[in-house]
Amino acid sequence: MTVKFGVLGAGRIGQVHASAIASVPGATLTAIADPVAAAAKSVQDKYGCDIRTIDAIEAADDIDAVVICTPTDTHADLIERFARAGKAVFCEKPVDLSVRRVQECLKVVDETKGRLMVGFNRRFDPDFNALRAAIDAGKIGDVEMVTITSRDPGAPPYAYIERSGGIFRDMTIHDFDVARWMLGEEVETVQAAASVLTDPKIGELGDYDSVNVILKTASGRQCVITNTRRATYGYDQRIEVLGSKGAASAENTREANIELADAEGFHRPPLLNFFMTRYTAAYANEIAAFVAALRDKTEMPTTGQDGLMALALADAALKSVDEARVVRLSEILD
Amino acid sequence: MTVKFGVLGAGRIGQVHASAIASVPGATLTAIADPVAAAAKSVQDKYGCDIRTIDAIEAADDIDAVVICTPTDTHADLIERFARAGKAVFCEKPVDLSVRRVQECLKVVDETKGRLMVGFNRRFDPDFNALRAAIDAGKIGDVEMVTITSRDPGAPPYAYIERSGGIFRDMTIHDFDVARWMLGEEVETVQAAASVLTDPKIGELGDYDSVNVILKTASGRQCVITNTRRATYGYDQRIEVLGSKGAASAENTREANIELADAEGFHRPPLLNFFMTRYTAAYANEIAAFVAALRDKTEMPTTGQDGLMALALADAALKSVDEARVVRLSEILD
Amino acid sequence: MTVKFGVLGAGRIGQVHASAIASVPGATLTAIADPVAAAAKSVQDKYGCDIRTIDAIEAADDIDAVVICTPTDTHADLIERFARAGKAVFCEKPVDLSVRRVQECLKVVDETKGRLMVGFNRRFDPDFNALRAAIDAGKIGDVEMVTITSRDPGAPPYAYIERSGGIFRDMTIHDFDVARWMLGEEVETVQAAASVLTDPKIGELGDYDSVNVILKTASGRQCVITNTRRATYGYDQRIEVLGSKGAASAENTREANIELADAEGFHRPPLLNFFMTRYTAAYANEIAAFVAALRDKTEMPTTGQDGLMALALADAALKSVDEARVVRLSEILD
Amino acid sequence: MTVKFGVLGAGRIGQVHASAIASVPGATLTAIADPVAAAAKSVQDKYGCDIRTIDAIEAADDIDAVVICTPTDTHADLIERFARAGKAVFCEKPVDLSVRRVQECLKVVDETKGRLMVGFNRRFDPDFNALRAAIDAGKIGDVEMVTITSRDPGAPPYAYIERSGGIFRDMTIHDFDVARWMLGEEVETVQAAASVLTDPKIGELGDYDSVNVILKTASGRQCVITNTRRATYGYDQRIEVLGSKGAASAENTREANIELADAEGFHRPPLLNFFMTRYTAAYANEIAAFVAALRDKTEMPTTGQDGLMALALADAALKSVDEARVVRLSEILD
Repeated sequence: MTVKFGVLGAGRIGQVHASAIASVPGATLTAIADPVAAAAKSVQDKYGCDIRTIDAIEAADDIDAVVICTPTDTHADLIERFARAGKAVFCEKPVDLSVRRVQECLKVVDETKGRLMVGFNRRFDPDFNALRAAIDAGKIGDVEMVTITSRDPGAPPYAYIERSGGIFRDMTIHDFDVARWMLGEEVETVQAAASVLTDPKIGELGDYDSVNVILKTASGRQCVITNTRRATYGYDQRIEVLGSKGAASAENTREANIELADAEGFHRPPLLNFFMTRYTAAYANEIAAFVAALRDKTEMPTTGQDGLMALALADAALKSVDEARVVRLSEILD
Repeated sequence: MTVKFGVLGAGRIGQVHASAIASVPGATLTAIADPVAAAAKSVQDKYGCDIRTIDAIEAADDIDAVVICTPTDTHADLIERFARAGKAVFCEKPVDLSVRRVQECLKVVDETKGRLMVGFNRRFDPDFNALRAAIDAGKIGDVEMVTITSRDPGAPPYAYIERSGGIFRDMTIHDFDVARWMLGEEVETVQAAASVLTDPKIGELGDYDSVNVILKTASGRQCVITNTRRATYGYDQRIEVLGSKGAASAENTREANIELADAEGFHRPPLLNFFMTRYTAAYANEIAAFVAALRDKTEMPTTGQDGLMALALADAALKSVDEARVVRLSEILD
Repeated sequence: MTVKFGVLGAGRIGQVHASAIASVPGATLTAIADPVAAAAKSVQDKYGCDIRTIDAIEAADDIDAVVICTPTDTHADLIERFARAGKAVFCEKPVDLSVRRVQECLKVVDETKGRLMVGFNRRFDPDFNALRAAIDAGKIGDVEMVTITSRDPGAPPYAYIERSGGIFRDMTIHDFDVARWMLGEEVETVQAAASVLTDPKIGELGDYDSVNVILKTASGRQCVITNTRRATYGYDQRIEVLGSKGAASAENTREANIELADAEGFHRPPLLNFFMTRYTAAYANEIAAFVAALRDKTEMPTTGQDGLMALALADAALKSVDEARVVRLSEILD
Repeated sequence: MTVKFGVLGAGRIGQVHASAIASVPGATLTAIADPVAAAAKSVQDKYGCDIRTIDAIEAADDIDAVVICTPTDTHADLIERFARAGKAVFCEKPVDLSVRRVQECLKVVDETKGRLMVGFNRRFDPDFNALRAAIDAGKIGDVEMVTITSRDPGAPPYAYIERSGGIFRDMTIHDFDVARWMLGEEVETVQAAASVLTDPKIGELGDYDSVNVILKTASGRQCVITNTRRATYGYDQRIEVLGSKGAASAENTREANIELADAEGFHRPPLLNFFMTRYTAAYANEIAAFVAALRDKTEMPTTGQDGLMALALADAALKSVDEARVVRLSEILD
């Protein structure tokens, strides 16, 4: 069985997913949709798929699944629409910037018995999976403290920041999902600190560029997330987990595995600088896992509920900064 | 000129300082005082110094300086007494567990024009100094975010925990001082989370064993401190500083600099497991810096004020946990 | 322009190249040939190519190039045959185990103006290329001393060893090529030591399993190659180059980039254990370079002459062991 | 019991040993001898010992042991003289540059039942000892292949090179001793390559600056030694041992254990640059081991025989270079 895909949106992330589909056995890229003709054309040229409208993809018999890579404010509507059309849906995070809207959307998916996977690419990174596997194998005993260091090489364009919902909903949201994955227990309380340190303009747009968050579960497990929008040395993505018997960590990935030495000392190249090169394998694995879940009719590895929880944590973090206090997740999700 | 020392207290830390004095040029161990005769005797046997009472050391003409290594609740009284006696004083942290009492004590030191150094050994660690020097040399631009990972191999005895003032005042206090040193700006707000994860008995004694703290300065610089009382792999002491132009980190120190490889993979020895072996050089450097400040009549490298600030941060962290909110340092120091 | 490939031989290495061809833009796998029907069928099933005889591939108009993955003793004949047929040839090392036979074969290629690339996959490894690029960029000044550590996880089957021409011609041959690449100057003298340490049966077959070789160029540059047939911790592939201004090294690749810590110390996974996973990128890059040279009508990146030189170095090393003396390369190549 | 020491020679290495004696419990520096008054005076000022002539030290009742730090060509005579005088002798390597002369000297030591330790400081380095201990504990099975990388930051003065006996006898001699220690079996054959790459003047003086040596034992164990006189990044001292079950390595020691990151990549400080700082602990441990052997009347940890064997290996290496062939150690020692 081969899953025939339509990709909605031929922007940067749409191209990442088109490439992933092309590389995954059991998946075929059948159609691309994008209002910008040149963008759609470039995907067609590369992968030989059709160019169609979203309406045509919705109505097509030869499409089994769609990957939603359109602007965030269209995600929830498209999920509902394709769920009702009986297509499996892979949606880039987030489902929506509003917890209420996500909850409504998931209700529709539920009522239509839709198949929905929300893309949290890091869950499919080989190193992070090796880390999780070591923990599952009991190598470090019970998980106690998690530290996630996640720094972008540079801030996105101002136009993007304005519409992103802020650093917690745009950037930290990935780390909130990783935190839930690594903690192995739901978060109960959230507290956060936020500053503008790299560019005052980000502050003028109402956002922050440097944040620390502490999460705590009912049994007292804690997770610290450290985010910044500027790491000159590359895309810094580390996870460290302390357990009752030991600790486990996943290290960064460099441009090349070499070292130079001279009178100044020892030098290694910067980190991979871009999420697409850093997480190439993760994007392919993610689509492969989606295809496998469709084929085997098993549960999606990352669900709409995961998308909802990560967003709620983002809201809680922002509320914590605004009110200078610890916020319970139940205040957000009532 | 040689500084002639009396050491008050021949316990574990007293012996560390006696050894440091013996190894530092320009310093002589003249007398040891301890109510436990055997303890005092063992120092005498090793370094050939006199055994005297605290009163005798206070009155002695041949003593220039004392190192206070007695139980915490005697520190402030002894500082005042020896400041009045005209002796230079090196006091192990903390001056006292009460911010008020520390403030009174520092007033006496001030009035008597006493010379007081409060021992924060980490400021004298060679690696941490190389880190600070790199920052001072502009290698990473302006400091933005600091991460301090500080984990003990195991918890102290219950009897110690009962009297220690709690993990923030006993253990995190070192990290608060390092944070101030690395941030290069005073902390304005404190928030913390605390759990009991390694031993429920610690919770019964009213303390925590696993904490995360976020500090923030007026300009928005942040520091995260991660503490736990149990790291099976050794005494974990790391500092990481992110700046506008780059990042700098100080790594752990291992038992030996070797690596083994076999069918299971690659293996390196655990970390040095004990503060005395990990910070041997720091303890010697600390006494050397005290001696140099006395000789050169310069400012003490770590002052009573440093002791006060670290304690106030500990109080703020505890208040933050108790009240589940961000606490301003000014609430503690009025 | 797309290069249409026939692959001769559907064994392990034939499958590696088939996979590489499938992944390289501008290359198509048109036909596979193998006397073992099941082997050919498995390639056909995976990549949808034709199954043909070698004769049919030789005669085919729709084949531009062949990849020779047949047993070593057929290489030279097939190269000559396909050169005469006007097909471009990519041949797995070695061209032949006899220097004379290689020289004759290259003469035929020359006379027919044939395009021949001899596969030395390591020249296409991303890390080794980054190393070479750093040297070319002058980062370490003039090359002086090269150290190549190259250890297989385990010995090949006895049947293979019997026909391989011995460790120098089968295994070290790759390192001889890397040495020439890194030294940047032809080798003048060779000396070697050889032992049987991992399995006496290897000695009974007339081969060695543990060798060290020293190469020296006219200007005095030196290279040490260390080989063993058994490294329990994985496929150990390191290069280190010392220059007048510094040093450069390429490190190993691990199964995963994680570290575990416990009371025994710190643990990282073994190295990638198999040449196909270790050099996956190199195999794809190698075919891409072959395709690019055909398309751009430029010189082959690794030539028949490279194959000849590496083989001559192997012969010199063996002669050095046999005669317990330094051997000049000119003794082999007259 | 305290061993009372006379140190012969107050040059650089004499001062290293004086400092080591001062730091070792059970050892006292009683007298220093040096024809250069200022040199002797500087040791006296630092450690408060007597200044005496060599004759006076020989005749003194209050001297138990001497450390010979005079020029190499006086070593053998002084060893014989002090052995006859009934003093224990610690002699810096080498005993002499002539194998014959060393053999005569050791005969005298033997006849007088003298106690002689020849200083091979690396055997007392904590990391190398941890490596040897891991091998002894069976962590890597049977030793098969050893790789010693040993590079000096820079060449010694020309005047020193002229009298040093050449790189094999002056520099590699340490590595020959380490090789014997790590191989755990005597060397049977030696082959070497030598070049002048860093400074033509070294060649004019009849010496080499860049050498590789292969040693082989009767059972086929091999060791490669790589030496150069110029490593811009510091004093490069690494040992790597491959065994039947795994591998073990000892890494270099850096100036500080920190790392900086910026847009160029990741940077660590150079290696410790000087044998005295790199091997500070080894020098102290070496004297402590000498004192312990005297006190416990046990065998010396490094003997005159060790000195002889290392020198013979150096002679064999030089002969191998001169004659372009493998040399048996028995040719040197007959």
